Amino acid sequence: MIGAGSGGLTVAIGLAGFGRRVALVEASRVGGDCTNTGCIPSKRLIHLARQADSGNSARVLADVRATRDGLADRERRELIENPRIELVEGAARLTGPQQVRVATVAGDRTFEARHVIVATGSRARTLEIPGLPAERLLTNSSLFDLSTTPQHLAIIGAGAIGLEMACAFRRLGSRVSLIDLADRVLPIAVPDASATVAAALAQQGITIRLGARVTGYDADAQVLVVATPDGTTRLVDVDRVLVAIGREPNTGGLGLDTAGVRYGPQGIHVDAWGRTSTRSVWAVGDVTPGSHQTHAANANGRRIVQRIALPWLPALGGPPVIPSAVFSDPEVAWVGLSTAELSRRCDARVVTRIRIDLPATDRGLTDGVTGGFVAIDAVRLTGRILSATVVGPHASELIAVLTLAMHRRTSLFRLSRMVYAYPTFAGAIGKAADEFARQTLGNVRKDVSIYARYRFSGGDRKTHG
Amino acid sequence: MIGAGSGGLTVAIGLAGFGRRVALVEASRVGGDCTNTGCIPSKRLIHLARQADSGNSARVLADVRATRDGLADRERRELIENPRIELVEGAARLTGPQQVRVATVAGDRTFEARHVIVATGSRARTLEIPGLPAERLLTNSSLFDLSTTPQHLAIIGAGAIGLEMACAFRRLGSRVSLIDLADRVLPIAVPDASATVAAALAQQGITIRLGARVTGYDADAQVLVVATPDGTTRLVDVDRVLVAIGREPNTGGLGLDTAGVRYGPQGIHVDAWGRTSTRSVWAVGDVTPGSHQTHAANANGRRIVQRIALPWLPALGGPPVIPSAVFSDPEVAWVGLSTAELSRRCDARVVTRIRIDLPATDRGLTDGVTGGFVAIDAVRLTGRILSATVVGPHASELIAVLTLAMHRRTSLFRLSRMVYAYPTFAGAIGKAADEFARQTLGNVRKDVSIYARYRFSGGDRKTHG
Repeated sequence: MIGAGSGGLTVAIGLAGFGRRVALVEASRVGGDCTNTGCIPSKRLIHLARQADSGNSARVLADVRATRDGLADRERRELIENPRIELVEGAARLTGPQQVRVATVAGDRTFEARHVIVATGSRARTLEIPGLPAERLLTNSSLFDLSTTPQHLAIIGAGAIGLEMACAFRRLGSRVSLIDLADRVLPIAVPDASATVAAALAQQGITIRLGARVTGYDADAQVLVVATPDGTTRLVDVDRVLVAIGREPNTGGLGLDTAGVRYGPQGIHVDAWGRTSTRSVWAVGDVTPGSHQTHAANANGRRIVQRIALPWLPALGGPPVIPSAVFSDPEVAWVGLSTAELSRRCDARVVTRIRIDLPATDRGLTDGVTGGFVAIDAVRLTGRILSATVVGPHASELIAVLTLAMHRRTSLFRLSRMVYAYPTFAGAIGKAADEFARQTLGNVRKDVSIYARYRFSGGDRKTHG
Repeated sequence: MIGAGSGGLTVAIGLAGFGRRVALVEASRVGGDCTNTGCIPSKRLIHLARQADSGNSARVLADVRATRDGLADRERRELIENPRIELVEGAARLTGPQQVRVATVAGDRTFEARHVIVATGSRARTLEIPGLPAERLLTNSSLFDLSTTPQHLAIIGAGAIGLEMACAFRRLGSRVSLIDLADRVLPIAVPDASATVAAALAQQGITIRLGARVTGYDADAQVLVVATPDGTTRLVDVDRVLVAIGREPNTGGLGLDTAGVRYGPQGIHVDAWGRTSTRSVWAVGDVTPGSHQTHAANANGRRIVQRIALPWLPALGGPPVIPSAVFSDPEVAWVGLSTAELSRRCDARVVTRIRIDLPATDRGLTDGVTGGFVAIDAVRLTGRILSATVVGPHASELIAVLTLAMHRRTSLFRLSRMVYAYPTFAGAIGKAADEFARQTLGNVRKDVSIYARYRFSGGDRKTHG
């Protein structure tokens, strides 16, 4: 087991629970990105920033570090106490399909193993900014070591990390500028979500520059120079630049070629169960392509445990339905097909989109919500959910309802027969289902003809059944 | 249609949507308790109280009234604009199974109708407190007309309304004492929930007196006298007393006897579809026994609409699974069998309870949660969910996941195969499902024998299937 992050811990603890002996190799800190430089410190920061007045931001940052270190210590202790897991600290490389050599402080050790699992994670992609001193350039791995908040934080990359940190540092009192090459924030989500989030960020006083590229930094004047579609903009008093433009898999120096494991720029190639091109080698988490989230690493890690420990167990269902969540303000969460997959895999005439705006709901009224929505793409007539997006309070929690609906193939008809506590935001899911039922019953003659024409002329049964 | 509250509006608008003509009679305010003296003002108050510092409580109370009145106006306008609904303002009484007489300001009017629906709601039960001036006694119907917060608010009744208002007024700066005859707060929920909420309330500085009865009030000294198991306690500086000890159905003066409609102290007797003992008369909402919540009234109202407008539609599934939510701090929500039903209907040996404490979860860690849990009662071996309770942040939203699981008869095994966004409180539901799967696989031999012995010796197949 190479790497003690989210994926590695899931597999190691899971296999140990089934009585297997595990050597868990970690070159850096137990807990990986999630515990040390990702979910845990960022969510603690977001939580504290929502409550704090900007006066005590140094205390907030100290608390974030203490929380992170406390959890990392606990995870390390639990590993050491597990009688079936040996924690080996050092850098590993495969010297064959079933052999791993680890460089520890006490010298090299060689392990022979029935299975080798690679979970070495990823690192932040970075950027050359002419004139910017190294100590002013941050990534997620150095961000949480700040002891004071920046005066003006420029964030390059308006993805999940960029949005979350923009909102948190803005609340802690920093001036924040968000810069992205793309023409909208969070391009991975549906365009509606980007628009709602961008409007909310602007209202929080965050400056957004889209279609923009950082060209240089003047250290004496503390000016960051940005090329935008409207010409060059100079952002003044910028004392820190956070680069959050994506991740690179940690595939280097692992001996993957020696073991015959195929990989590319997106990471190690794996099948639906996490197996690589070499039968004895598996990979999980950020070092593989696909979803780079802790819960995805856990889910895929559990599949590897099942395959190794219970190979006779039937492979129930397809790959799991994996939701995504961004803890910005407002939160954004989605599940199912992306906009691109939707238009590639489904005929637009067979899909209907229902959108319920949260400000128009009773909970939105009581809580003074000014933006946000539940949007569901479903197959006409059958009500099968293809994808869903929630933007607004507790979106990361609400997406569980829609994930379960997809997991259980629950149609919008059935969701409209469910009762939701009143007044709640979850009720907007019920409203969307009601709206679908209303529209469908109203258009039933037209829809039957569209659906039948599509369905019996070569449509993809799997997607639209 | 007699009564324009949650139940009445659902049925009236629903039937109008199916082309039926509706006369909607309302003696007081459109929107009923929910809009005017219940959910809407209380949830607005709770939301604002969470954000406010105690300095601007008068402004908070004014905002609550404005929100309530704005919604009531909008609902009234929407009714008047609906071409199929005639809003008739006055007091109605049945003069026959299909005849209603309404006393309006312009004189009496008589309506002949194929169906008569009674949705007259309920009113707060009240209490004689010797020595307490009438203007110091509040119920939910007068509470939201306060223009300033009480100095010391005594609340009699630690149910949903009592708990919600205790937390809200405490946050607005009032001293709050909560008094109940029962030996725990929220006796309708599982005991664990009562204990967690009581601890949180105490920490917020709310005084709780259980097993206690108010015996009198000294108006000059502003002292409320309370008999407790430990003797007499004198609560000083009490300037307002809120009575929240339950509801009484509005069955009086309606001519129910004339129409042959049977009712009792709990309200009008109805079958599973809302029909009374007189075929042409239906009843919905608080005037009927059972769940007194807006979403229950909506759900049951929809069933009446379906029965009247689409009588040929098959009655799919049983009565809906109806969740309950209390918006105290922490929130409490539950679904499924009550503790009493559980012990009456299920052999204790066949049921297992799984409890996950939120402070032990990663989201609990990042958000500094000190109490709260997800508890699920399920059938051993099959994992069928019988009841579930959530106490903690967003419990009212999270209960939708468990409601959907029960609605779709999703076992804990299937819930454990679902992926939850990380880190979220919803993930605690997944942890509970994992824990169930782990325990069940660990004890499978013992459990099979218990289950088989029970199942094949006369157990209730419906409950445990």
